[in-house]
Amino acid sequence: TSYILSERGYDVAYIDLDFHGPAGQSLFPVDIQFKGGKEGLELPTSNGVRVISVGYFLGDNPFPLSGRDKIDLLADFFSILSLGELDFTIIDLPPGMGDELTFTQRILKEKISIAMVTTNSELSLNVVERLIKYAKTEGLRLLGIIVNMADLFKRYGLKQIEEKLQVDILGKVSYYPKLEEFKTIKDKLENIHEFRKEIENIVGGILKKLNY
Amino acid sequence: TSYILSERGYDVAYIDLDFHGPAGQSLFPVDIQFKGGKEGLELPTSNGVRVISVGYFLGDNPFPLSGRDKIDLLADFFSILSLGELDFTIIDLPPGMGDELTFTQRILKEKISIAMVTTNSELSLNVVERLIKYAKTEGLRLLGIIVNMADLFKRYGLKQIEEKLQVDILGKVSYYPKLEEFKTIKDKLENIHEFRKEIENIVGGILKKLNY
Repeated sequence: TSYILSERGYDVAYIDLDFHGPAGQSLFPVDIQFKGGKEGLELPTSNGVRVISVGYFLGDNPFPLSGRDKIDLLADFFSILSLGELDFTIIDLPPGMGDELTFTQRILKEKISIAMVTTNSELSLNVVERLIKYAKTEGLRLLGIIVNMADLFKRYGLKQIEEKLQVDILGKVSYYPKLEEFKTIKDKLENIHEFRKEIENIVGGILKKLNY
Repeated sequence: TSYILSERGYDVAYIDLDFHGPAGQSLFPVDIQFKGGKEGLELPTSNGVRVISVGYFLGDNPFPLSGRDKIDLLADFFSILSLGELDFTIIDLPPGMGDELTFTQRILKEKISIAMVTTNSELSLNVVERLIKYAKTEGLRLLGIIVNMADLFKRYGLKQIEEKLQVDILGKVSYYPKLEEFKTIKDKLENIHEFRKEIENIVGGILKKLNY
């Protein structure tokens, strides 16, 4: 989504807050050094997207992180980043209702809109169902649901999920075995046309929801 | 694994520490009330396995949990449970190196052995690779790796994963679309024979590793 938005001419940042399983460093390779300035840490640009992930600093080293340390790291992320004037900031959160979500919510308040990614397996839908209840209680702006690997877990059709969860479906992504062969998001999108079409569709859905 | 071990006559408890996406309540349905005694909270038995999961208390309600609260809940779980004399206690941890792992490790120390579940997708293998490094640094007893949905993500064969990660493969589980049709683990195992065979195989591998 970040990459497609930047292709369309928007200024986009991608912030990977999944500290336990960061993917940003693989999806968006960065060669340059990080540069600090008096405005804060400037995010490196990868394929047009400004991007930050703990993965850049970790290599393949382990990163045990207690609850307290995670809150500190989240505070660091949000305090040192110099995001400047952006059209979109995409924040990749791990599943669940931990500090990654509640802290981000506290910092960004009404600026955030949420898109939830789920498979249509029973377990994944249960997690998302709880998350939707939470979002509604908290008055968070919920754009909708993206169904991943939609062709694999066929428990429910998209219409059924929409009815069950009472939330719009923004789009679906199928399972592509070849996705694994390409490391960066640019390569994935350029080489697997059906995948690209599905992501374009989701981006369209999000922009429409946001009245862009 | 818990269920198969109990079938084989072992006393087994299953503790679901995945607070954000608890599955224990679906896999092991429980009708009876929880009973407290002076020894602590007695775990209800479901299909022969003593089981505890926050899922029993949540229903489909959301459960936001900050880092501090999670540590408190973990402390509660381990302090109030009356496990008695068991042959095996299977602890289901969410992915990553958060408090769920480090706290459990601090409480149970050398009593724990770890089996890691991964798919053979690049992202999942990266997460597990970090976890293995961590386990080795901490001197944790690592039984091996279980490869889930092994027939879907074919990036690496089992032998290749073994070489890449330098850890034994305990077994694999294939992707069964029908798995979703059955809710409890008992029903899943009874109705999908190939699935049962794979799990039996993993249990055999684990018992062998533990010299049972």
